[in-house]
Amino acid sequence: MDCFLLKCTLCNKTEVFALKGKCECGGTLLVEYDIELAARTFTKANLKQRHSSMWKYHELLPITNPNCIVSLGEGYTPLIRLNTWEQKLPLGKLYIKREEQNPTGSFKARGFSAALTLLKERGIVKAAVPSNGNAASAFAAYSGRAGIDAYVFIPQDCPYLIVEECLHYGAKTYLVDGLIHDAGAIVEAGKVEQGWFNVGTLREPGRVEGKKTMGFEIAEQLEWTLPDVIIYPTGGGSGVIGLWRAFSQLLELGLVNGEMPRIAAVQEYGCTPICDAFQETGLTVYATLPAPTGMRVPEPPDRQLVASIIRKMNGTTVTVTQAEIRAAAAATGLSGISSSPEGAATWAGMLRLCETGWIQKKDKVVLFNTSHAMKYSAGKHASHIPLIKSYQDFLDVRK
Amino acid sequence: MDCFLLKCTLCNKTEVFALKGKCECGGTLLVEYDIELAARTFTKANLKQRHSSMWKYHELLPITNPNCIVSLGEGYTPLIRLNTWEQKLPLGKLYIKREEQNPTGSFKARGFSAALTLLKERGIVKAAVPSNGNAASAFAAYSGRAGIDAYVFIPQDCPYLIVEECLHYGAKTYLVDGLIHDAGAIVEAGKVEQGWFNVGTLREPGRVEGKKTMGFEIAEQLEWTLPDVIIYPTGGGSGVIGLWRAFSQLLELGLVNGEMPRIAAVQEYGCTPICDAFQETGLTVYATLPAPTGMRVPEPPDRQLVASIIRKMNGTTVTVTQAEIRAAAAATGLSGISSSPEGAATWAGMLRLCETGWIQKKDKVVLFNTSHAMKYSAGKHASHIPLIKSYQDFLDVRK
Repeated sequence: MDCFLLKCTLCNKTEVFALKGKCECGGTLLVEYDIELAARTFTKANLKQRHSSMWKYHELLPITNPNCIVSLGEGYTPLIRLNTWEQKLPLGKLYIKREEQNPTGSFKARGFSAALTLLKERGIVKAAVPSNGNAASAFAAYSGRAGIDAYVFIPQDCPYLIVEECLHYGAKTYLVDGLIHDAGAIVEAGKVEQGWFNVGTLREPGRVEGKKTMGFEIAEQLEWTLPDVIIYPTGGGSGVIGLWRAFSQLLELGLVNGEMPRIAAVQEYGCTPICDAFQETGLTVYATLPAPTGMRVPEPPDRQLVASIIRKMNGTTVTVTQAEIRAAAAATGLSGISSSPEGAATWAGMLRLCETGWIQKKDKVVLFNTSHAMKYSAGKHASHIPLIKSYQDFLDVRK
Repeated sequence: MDCFLLKCTLCNKTEVFALKGKCECGGTLLVEYDIELAARTFTKANLKQRHSSMWKYHELLPITNPNCIVSLGEGYTPLIRLNTWEQKLPLGKLYIKREEQNPTGSFKARGFSAALTLLKERGIVKAAVPSNGNAASAFAAYSGRAGIDAYVFIPQDCPYLIVEECLHYGAKTYLVDGLIHDAGAIVEAGKVEQGWFNVGTLREPGRVEGKKTMGFEIAEQLEWTLPDVIIYPTGGGSGVIGLWRAFSQLLELGLVNGEMPRIAAVQEYGCTPICDAFQETGLTVYATLPAPTGMRVPEPPDRQLVASIIRKMNGTTVTVTQAEIRAAAAATGLSGISSSPEGAATWAGMLRLCETGWIQKKDKVVLFNTSHAMKYSAGKHASHIPLIKSYQDFLDVRK
């Protein structure tokens, strides 16, 4: 018998675990574990002995058959301390979680490692995902690994390197004249006729659980303490849900003490439905949408749930501009960190929150770089780079 | 007092440790450790308790001041088993070491983490590197992290995404009308006048030592056993030197038993100096050079040393074509693995060596994917990807 259930975040009803994301009442379903059972083996000493992978936390992942785990080497990404910046800002301690070091260059690998494991356990052979890009390429890779037929639907302005990744991993790849929710509508329209399992955001319980492991790792990497502040780039918001679940479960298990971290959800000017839901302002309408990144999700599947979690975490939301994101990417680059627009947005958000005093001198802060900068490269050759043939040329071009 | 020295691989003379790569006799200098001293703390039990990073192996890295470690989260990359392929080929067990999951997307991160640590310990403020690309971007990132002024010299046909990385990390970046050894000549010509420390291949002892950690990790990830066969893409050959040193030291420490792995060094048709040195054929002259990758090093700094190590490891060399590399990248892609040309070359080499019988049914084989596929993307938008607006469009384009 499975030792986990699904519980609705809206009506609180529990039901048998299944590959579904929505309760009949419309609420989002999340996995409920037997925490006492997990506590027997999910111990600091045991975890220290295990190989570095998100699957070391398997007691709190909803799988029944370890032989079905679909792994490409996801998780246990580095947590880097940026100590030279701590005095300047100032804040207590500053860390960046390098999620771009996952397979397929983004944190999405975690969610799809978990989701494809669930699909494989149940013998599903065909699946589809609507995505802004990184979810599509992660889904494509893990489907290839699992031997599952993958269909991906991506907005046509998705950076080409990400589209290329989907093709490389063998996914049937379609560009959509529209946004991520238009891609989602196509998957929904075709799923019965085509036999697609829809692995879109909050459509099944695996992806949130996979992302949850980011929270477990931070705690373990910080020697079983929690940071004061998490700054997280937010699109659909399932990463926020995952982090909240991780910290809640660690507190319940008594593996960490103290306060739940305060989370700051960052969105980009032009598309801020999570910020709007948190601030209860009604949806802000912008003249133009921002460039395609993981943050551009105009219709997140459950923004009220995400907003309520931000409140439970004594969190906040921040809207940053494209100019701030660019400046942040340049600043982190000079420290040797390659930040995607999403990761740079957390840096920009941090600067804002230091200014307003929401982040204080004593705070231990963790930023998330969720994806690889390279993926967003325009790929044009800059003509300003000097071309030389000799040391004399070097001297000449510097004159 | 330092507990390590330098030893010449040609005349066997030892000397005081310094940031130099060549003996007066012209031989390559490698680091000599006090293995008995290391053995006291470099134990399986201790290593299991340490955080996953290449720096967990610090007893066998030539650093004196742990506060100077220049880290961006390098090492402890996943070792993935490709079990569905084992029956097909056939061979015993097949693993791929995902070195592209290092910072800056390549195994070069390890060498520069070590080298920049040595430079920082000694207060060096300005350094330069000739590179085919990945070494340059890794050097740029670690220099940024260390606060060292970086100059990089790269052949002008280097893939643009790698050039862009160098700029992003703030390196003074120069394209060279020539090959990597032409870039090297520029660094040598300017180093005194410009005050550059030359961090080129085998110019200082750090890079080989950093790469050595790949070998330690494989052994630890395989529960302290050694593979039978390593297939390694080879340019300058310092990775081969590093792996040999790792396995030799583990055998000397008694942490592993049995035979030294057999190494197969893979090069691409068009540039095969290491293969030529191993086969003692004299340099093969080709009509055209291959595309720029880490394997294109026509004048490796010490090919005789690399060839002698391949012999000591009962190894071999393999030359593969660009067509084989492309087919290999496609094959691994469908298994969810993104292979750079260098990584794909190891797959192509493996196919060859299975055919010839050099790899046998019982062999446990490890391939190295040293870099990220994305870095080599042409970045052109493929016009064959269908653009759709609705599920009906999806049905229509499939007709």
